[in-house]
Amino acid sequence: MQVAIPLFPRLTALDAIGPYEVLQRVPEFDVVFVGAERGEVRTENGMLGLTVDATFAEVERPDVVVVPGGVGSRDHLEGSSLVDWVAAVHPTTRMTTSVCTGSLILAAAGLLTGRTATTHWGATEILAKLGAEPVRQRVVAHPEQRIITAAGVAAGIDMGIRLVALLVDEVAAQAAQLGIEYDPEPPYDAGHPDKVGPEVMARVREFSAVRR
Amino acid sequence: MQVAIPLFPRLTALDAIGPYEVLQRVPEFDVVFVGAERGEVRTENGMLGLTVDATFAEVERPDVVVVPGGVGSRDHLEGSSLVDWVAAVHPTTRMTTSVCTGSLILAAAGLLTGRTATTHWGATEILAKLGAEPVRQRVVAHPEQRIITAAGVAAGIDMGIRLVALLVDEVAAQAAQLGIEYDPEPPYDAGHPDKVGPEVMARVREFSAVRR
Repeated sequence: MQVAIPLFPRLTALDAIGPYEVLQRVPEFDVVFVGAERGEVRTENGMLGLTVDATFAEVERPDVVVVPGGVGSRDHLEGSSLVDWVAAVHPTTRMTTSVCTGSLILAAAGLLTGRTATTHWGATEILAKLGAEPVRQRVVAHPEQRIITAAGVAAGIDMGIRLVALLVDEVAAQAAQLGIEYDPEPPYDAGHPDKVGPEVMARVREFSAVRR
Repeated sequence: MQVAIPLFPRLTALDAIGPYEVLQRVPEFDVVFVGAERGEVRTENGMLGLTVDATFAEVERPDVVVVPGGVGSRDHLEGSSLVDWVAAVHPTTRMTTSVCTGSLILAAAGLLTGRTATTHWGATEILAKLGAEPVRQRVVAHPEQRIITAAGVAAGIDMGIRLVALLVDEVAAQAAQLGIEYDPEPPYDAGHPDKVGPEVMARVREFSAVRR
């Protein structure tokens, strides 16, 4: 199965690399990083370059699509070659998925209209404006419509493991989890706005003003 | 604070990108990806290219070092420009750290001799041969010696959050966790060999024979 992960300027790297790392362990999957043009794309802060190896035109029938998010996703809400590609390839994928604000791109491509979906906790209003029904869930799966959305950034790892279970089998999913030693021990229980106080919330907003 | 993350051929991307994604959210940190030479480095399977933006010679006094692992780490066990750089910069870092088999590189640089440390569950014997004392812990911190090692791949996220707590403060650490929505919901409890049966163990070994 071919997994295509689109990269675009100002993406969030972990949105793409979390699911990539899970899927690439499983020999059934080959991963290709696609984009508007071949070559380097930089993350939102400019600190990291990732390589696009194939153009959208070169990847016409991917089996799995994983759309990452990041502030750069906002550049696609009124249409782009990425949005057109997602709309064009979705009818023949086995699963079209997103991580974080990648769901805004799925919504812009018309895939989430009237459907429950998730995104980064800071982007639920935009997702609603684009016609989806945001729900607070780590992963929202519509297996019959072949659409899965994951919550912010790190949620792509949880989704990647579920994808392996859906498309290969549960033993493979557990083997991928073991391969990446995903046995999380977060030092705090601070991964969702419902779980933190105003001091942490204020700090994350400060961070966002500087680093997006 | 300058965070330097070395990239080398056949690394594991998530080892580097997990901590990067945590640290880059915090305005106190600037991250630079360093390597033997500028330009693209490919992951172990060749599926992903990441950009080295600065050579080792150009990054002489990083405040924080995060060494990722991957099968390519084995190329450094008898010495390399990466190992020399780690040994040279460690005396002036605030923290020298590793994820996964990145600890083998710290060991090769002489940093772990006679010290407790961790690595990917599949590499504990090699770590012991290099003079460290492997322990089963997600993160092993020696704050006074300014050395921290994390277990396999995904453990770098847990370590990144701890690093923010140590070097900035606990509110910043929680804000970074919230920013990346690290509220893990792994679909299985299969993240460590102690937690899986022989069928999953056999499959992960099959995977490793094909994809490393």
